[in-house]
Amino acid sequence: MSNNKPIRRIAIVGTGVIGASWAALYLAQGLEVVATDPAPGAETKLREFVASAWPALTRLGLAPGASQSNLTFTADLAKAMASADFVQENGPERVDFKQKLYGQLDELLPPHVIIASSSSGIPMSQIQPGAHAHPERCVIGHPFNPPHLIPLVEIVGGAKTSAETIERADEFYTSIGRKTVRVKKEMAGHIANRLQAALAREVWYLVAEDVVSAADVDTALSWGPGLRWGVMGNMLLNHLAGGAGGIEHALKGLGGPMAAWWKTLGSPEMTPEFQRKLIDSVHAEVGSRTIEELETERDELLIGLVELRNRRAETAASHKAAAE
Amino acid sequence: MSNNKPIRRIAIVGTGVIGASWAALYLAQGLEVVATDPAPGAETKLREFVASAWPALTRLGLAPGASQSNLTFTADLAKAMASADFVQENGPERVDFKQKLYGQLDELLPPHVIIASSSSGIPMSQIQPGAHAHPERCVIGHPFNPPHLIPLVEIVGGAKTSAETIERADEFYTSIGRKTVRVKKEMAGHIANRLQAALAREVWYLVAEDVVSAADVDTALSWGPGLRWGVMGNMLLNHLAGGAGGIEHALKGLGGPMAAWWKTLGSPEMTPEFQRKLIDSVHAEVGSRTIEELETERDELLIGLVELRNRRAETAASHKAAAE
Repeated sequence: MSNNKPIRRIAIVGTGVIGASWAALYLAQGLEVVATDPAPGAETKLREFVASAWPALTRLGLAPGASQSNLTFTADLAKAMASADFVQENGPERVDFKQKLYGQLDELLPPHVIIASSSSGIPMSQIQPGAHAHPERCVIGHPFNPPHLIPLVEIVGGAKTSAETIERADEFYTSIGRKTVRVKKEMAGHIANRLQAALAREVWYLVAEDVVSAADVDTALSWGPGLRWGVMGNMLLNHLAGGAGGIEHALKGLGGPMAAWWKTLGSPEMTPEFQRKLIDSVHAEVGSRTIEELETERDELLIGLVELRNRRAETAASHKAAAE
Repeated sequence: MSNNKPIRRIAIVGTGVIGASWAALYLAQGLEVVATDPAPGAETKLREFVASAWPALTRLGLAPGASQSNLTFTADLAKAMASADFVQENGPERVDFKQKLYGQLDELLPPHVIIASSSSGIPMSQIQPGAHAHPERCVIGHPFNPPHLIPLVEIVGGAKTSAETIERADEFYTSIGRKTVRVKKEMAGHIANRLQAALAREVWYLVAEDVVSAADVDTALSWGPGLRWGVMGNMLLNHLAGGAGGIEHALKGLGGPMAAWWKTLGSPEMTPEFQRKLIDSVHAEVGSRTIEELETERDELLIGLVELRNRRAETAASHKAAAE
């Protein structure tokens, strides 16, 4: 079966911020990458991005054979698709554009090649009708920015996506160290962006209402609940909040206060005044620190946290193996 | 001025889960602790907890002179208050109980001694009327569980709390390595519990609606946005999401999608069926893992993350000093 052919060669369609980060990740995982983008100067920008990401990827661990020299670039879509085993599409977020693109890709690619879209905003059910012959091989494979540092990939099928496509996409992403989730219904924002929206709504409300400064709400999150969310998910944390009684006990205790808090949470309007409050408070927090300094800070800590969790998982796995 | 007397001796009122964790933290910070609790067996449980927390506190760094032998216990409230420099109150969450307790504390303590409440549920404006003589020295000093591992302390004054009390409480908590935030209006859940409530509402909704399993929503959070919230707050992350354009540019791009997502976020009812869905999905996620195993996992990673961020802050501080 051609379906069992190992995935060795990835075609990246669209090499903006997300596409370039995917390219760097795939290269670091020892895969071949052929990238395509019609924008002038795209190849230079892509190669610069990959080079700039390489030290971080090296720290996180390169796969055998990983090399920046496994990257090729062509502005010709058809050439990029030749002998591709898997496509990661990162085109503009417009339904008409994507439908047309998927029509072209569908004609160029043999039917076993999965076309995965990084789209955060357009459901696959609206994109895949463009792929007339084989819409079943189209799926959302949505990363979290920046994909080369953040392991999450959200997998969502459209109405015509096959179960096999979802299974194979999940296996592939997992094989290269991604943490996958399967979203069982198409929802605006999939999962992760909805969680961000839910949190930002209250954060922004509290800042705009002068309950707390941007600096202080950032402290409250990143030295409080955020610390825990950096190491474990909400549901398992709820389970542990119940002590020996687990989730059942936790919901008995938390259910009442939680329902009461829900009634008081903010529901702000995105007015210019509202945005102005956020902007002013962020600038007071940032002070003289540059974007570059803050990015370095964020990425150094992100890499450190991913390393910490990977090491811990290896330790746990070796303890388990020793006990068996 | 007696107000400038250094805080060396902490009285802990109530030695349940939160009080015991505070006691361990204060001891690790080299302070003397006198604890009081009327419950039978309270002293034994407290000493056992402190001993169990000591290895983690040792990893995070003991202050000079830190010792479990600096802990004394008395069931006599008046004795516990004698020569206390600061009181951390962790009594039952009942207004009548706390008002009466604050009346007693207010009579027992000289006016410069701050009485800080760990209350998550009762605003200080409702508690401090009990402290007839000196309500201005009463303040919320709300930790995040477990206080000996999580650095956040939320400081909230009531209607009668003095600015000086807030300033001194902030200085004290900061001096022992806590990350403080000042909440400028009394709100149900202060800040951190509101952020948790906002996130849990959407997490629980998505699980109860079968959009995603508990296991997968935990992956989405803790390997996606949660990773970033473990290292930086929402507002600074928004600033960086804007690239060179910062928060202004980010809000231009994010404002529309965010407002659209807000319209679709869930608003579930806390029914028994709803809770049952959460419980079943959590048990499927947990499998055969025990509460103890998961607690160890959470705490090992939490300690590692706090160590990582402390190390990074030291590196950044020494680079800054070298550049000056």
